[in-house]
Amino acid sequence: MTIMPKLPEKTIERLSQYRRALLICLGKNKQYIFSHELAGMLHLTPVQVRRDIMLIGYSGTLRQGYEIREMIALIGKIIDSEEGLKVAVIGLGNLGRAMISYFNGKRTKLSIVAAFDINQEKVNRVYAGVPCYHIDMLSKIIRSENIPIAIMTVPGDEAAKVTESLVLAGIKGILNYTPTPVNVPANTYLQEYDMITSLEKIAYFVKQGNREEHI
Amino acid sequence: MTIMPKLPEKTIERLSQYRRALLICLGKNKQYIFSHELAGMLHLTPVQVRRDIMLIGYSGTLRQGYEIREMIALIGKIIDSEEGLKVAVIGLGNLGRAMISYFNGKRTKLSIVAAFDINQEKVNRVYAGVPCYHIDMLSKIIRSENIPIAIMTVPGDEAAKVTESLVLAGIKGILNYTPTPVNVPANTYLQEYDMITSLEKIAYFVKQGNREEHI
Repeated sequence: MTIMPKLPEKTIERLSQYRRALLICLGKNKQYIFSHELAGMLHLTPVQVRRDIMLIGYSGTLRQGYEIREMIALIGKIIDSEEGLKVAVIGLGNLGRAMISYFNGKRTKLSIVAAFDINQEKVNRVYAGVPCYHIDMLSKIIRSENIPIAIMTVPGDEAAKVTESLVLAGIKGILNYTPTPVNVPANTYLQEYDMITSLEKIAYFVKQGNREEHI
Repeated sequence: MTIMPKLPEKTIERLSQYRRALLICLGKNKQYIFSHELAGMLHLTPVQVRRDIMLIGYSGTLRQGYEIREMIALIGKIIDSEEGLKVAVIGLGNLGRAMISYFNGKRTKLSIVAAFDINQEKVNRVYAGVPCYHIDMLSKIIRSENIPIAIMTVPGDEAAKVTESLVLAGIKGILNYTPTPVNVPANTYLQEYDMITSLEKIAYFVKQGNREEHI
């Protein structure tokens, strides 16, 4: 396998989205797709799609476009790890449970293998196939199970402390869904997502839209 | 009040994040903040922060930086609607419930006032202060309650149908948390977020990091 140079974040994000869209097409028994169709599904420009696909060394035909199965396989080679990667969910509240259900049976080489909580009613139970451990076991389980990725869904005021434990336990990538921004060392990859920010952005444009209509 | 020109999406996103960070500082009895501190909390550059803050017509002092309360109030004037905006959650599964809990008691002029589901065990009950209606009531309630924003947390194969109903009912902004991309008319503002895309991006960079370490 040729080693590909590290791709930009936004490209990886779009490749994941292409795969998601291609899998939907495949589910509808579609075999080929044009760049403009794929672009339309994802609200991107066809130029952007063609540029990304060229970057990963693939090209379709003018007549039929891209072969869907081939492209899914190629994207997999680039963004997946061959052996798959294990994921832990920290905080088994509604959001933590939503993440686990969401993953069940989805396409992806990632698998949630452990959850952690402090609530004794959740600890030592299995939720949708995933065992829940007490948070005191965090370091031990993450090391013994060789888990590199964690999803944080704990309350905001726990975020900093949990992040520290995760980094000490050897976690290399964190998805922070708490409302509190955190800091990680340079060799740890962090993604933060705050639901209220997304909604406030929508609210702003809805408000602007209304204003324009009224002018 | 001066009418401000429509700001770019990314700026609105950052203003919302600044407010979130400023509220955390305020909770710690901090009164002033420098641009580099705010930048550090949010993994941005100080230049970016200063540019955004200048754009909204605010300036701090060289000695003390920005006055936190003043800045929170100013951001509120720009991104909030004075009367607040109502939000509906479509799909009261784990993710829908997580959104409602997440909103409870949070700073924001947005309020979730209705949830919709098809499950008879959820319909006509109240979850954390939010009434749940049958999805057949969608259009009626959205119109009578004057709700402009919807959060979609239904299964992926329901996404297209629900989007259509929402648009017909007069919804102006949709946050799509289903794994299926949807289409909306030009006067409706759409944000899509797929959790697996975020995780796949993390997985890619974790994989790259490992590879670099091994070289």
